[in-house]
Amino acid sequence: MGGTSLTAVAASEAGHVVAESRQKTKPQDGPDVVIEQIIEAARRVIDRTESSKKFQAICVGAPGATDLNSGMVYKAPNLGWENVPLGQKLEKALGLKAIVGNDVNVGTLGEFHFGAGQGARHMVGIFVGTGLGGGIIIDGKPYHGSRGAAAEIGHTILLPGGPACGCGQRGCVEALASRTAMERDIRTGIAGGRKSIVLEIMKRESRSRMTSSVIEKALKRKDALMQEVISRAQYYLGLLTAGLVNVLDPEVVVFGGGLIERLGEQFLGPIRPVAYQHFLRKDNAQSIRLVPAKLKNHAGPLGAVVLGRQVLGI
Amino acid sequence: MGGTSLTAVAASEAGHVVAESRQKTKPQDGPDVVIEQIIEAARRVIDRTESSKKFQAICVGAPGATDLNSGMVYKAPNLGWENVPLGQKLEKALGLKAIVGNDVNVGTLGEFHFGAGQGARHMVGIFVGTGLGGGIIIDGKPYHGSRGAAAEIGHTILLPGGPACGCGQRGCVEALASRTAMERDIRTGIAGGRKSIVLEIMKRESRSRMTSSVIEKALKRKDALMQEVISRAQYYLGLLTAGLVNVLDPEVVVFGGGLIERLGEQFLGPIRPVAYQHFLRKDNAQSIRLVPAKLKNHAGPLGAVVLGRQVLGI
Repeated sequence: MGGTSLTAVAASEAGHVVAESRQKTKPQDGPDVVIEQIIEAARRVIDRTESSKKFQAICVGAPGATDLNSGMVYKAPNLGWENVPLGQKLEKALGLKAIVGNDVNVGTLGEFHFGAGQGARHMVGIFVGTGLGGGIIIDGKPYHGSRGAAAEIGHTILLPGGPACGCGQRGCVEALASRTAMERDIRTGIAGGRKSIVLEIMKRESRSRMTSSVIEKALKRKDALMQEVISRAQYYLGLLTAGLVNVLDPEVVVFGGGLIERLGEQFLGPIRPVAYQHFLRKDNAQSIRLVPAKLKNHAGPLGAVVLGRQVLGI
Repeated sequence: MGGTSLTAVAASEAGHVVAESRQKTKPQDGPDVVIEQIIEAARRVIDRTESSKKFQAICVGAPGATDLNSGMVYKAPNLGWENVPLGQKLEKALGLKAIVGNDVNVGTLGEFHFGAGQGARHMVGIFVGTGLGGGIIIDGKPYHGSRGAAAEIGHTILLPGGPACGCGQRGCVEALASRTAMERDIRTGIAGGRKSIVLEIMKRESRSRMTSSVIEKALKRKDALMQEVISRAQYYLGLLTAGLVNVLDPEVVVFGGGLIERLGEQFLGPIRPVAYQHFLRKDNAQSIRLVPAKLKNHAGPLGAVVLGRQVLGI
């Protein structure tokens, strides 16, 4: 589940999707409504699966800080949640063991096991959307750090004194390269007298936010402000990537999230030369692959399945 | 061994130092002279050890990119070395297995096993001196990444377009917070008309570089430019620390290198609040210890012993 939508799949332990359900969520109506939506989605994919198949668990990736042991969602700003006992409620309603992880961490896990990171030993996942999150795989296993607080790559400061970030600091990469940051820059540009068709496209499509599809349309129409703003974001994503490669030296960095799903190479392409330029060890820099995620909206659900298998030891 | 000096110890497998030898090196005279110095230092500490003790290996930390398998030093800019077969030469001269690692990596390993990092599971080492280097311990083991190129924390860009770094980029933390960067800022300040006693102190002590002892004396005499320059370095070290904590979430960050050895808390103290302020998860931020290295110039030699034990499986 993300901030605005939900993908439920019924999957085998090996990651084969046998049923699927996708829908918008209603976070504005409160946690109970969203949890009811999750329960209904789970029931739907269970109903669509051959009755001979037995379900072992419901595994969820939630957009926030979660606790694997208790199934608690401590804080999910994009949902407006605080201390929601998601796992407990799902177990009660569905009679299945519930396993709750972080959305970006399970996305990384999905891409590592079934997607663009297959075969690597060390991997970094960078997910760009409303926010900017990441996941780290070390020695084939998700890396969570000493307090479960690792991989908060979105709050790496790349421009001291730069734009304000939701976390309270300034100049975090999330405040420089997320879709939210790009929308802010577009609106600032327009307010300052720059011409742009972005707001027009949003109005025509009744979008209150600058979604990936709006960005795609503006780029197709060669909107100069949009091109400038996305180049700036790509520059900072290149710096972020190089910093992570210089510290973690993974075999592969997988880029996911709404912008990559929609724009693919058009978004990732310009990030690569900036990153390569800032790698410290250039001798075999090309051996580090910077690639788009493969599984689209299945990365999260399939990663949640992997997490569930790890927790249950199956 | 560092860029200018060499500490040799005879140590037990458990890290007890039984003999020691310290001296300045002569990198300007070429690799063979320095290698002869290492061989003599090793012979000295062997001679000073009870003859009943048997030596199993000579373990070295070299200031540059090294290869654990071949004992080759690929590149050590502070020594002016390129492709020096250090391990091979030591084995031939001493009749002992030689194990060659990177100085900062073995320093991290030493502090982890016998110093300030004891008991941690995940640790980061930050060493500030002529350059700025680091080491990473994950799950109790040194982390080297996919190409052995991990932990290059000195080339994290913290100020895009900032001062030029030896690596060819701009705004790396090494170009903002190393002793070399501080000396550059002092000289620039003085050239621009600022008053400072730093050059005077260097002259009086016949130092061509602004060593840690020069910095200490200037601070003791409340040199305003020195205070400004060191504050700036501390600010960037705080940002670097926070970025590493947000990504790696270790239990402890150990600060070592000449400046910490000389100034201790006076240097580390002001780094802490900047780092804590930029931690994303502040709830249990104080549980992450930011501490000075304990072993002083023994961190490297004892870490090299640990590395040797790991390689030899003893």
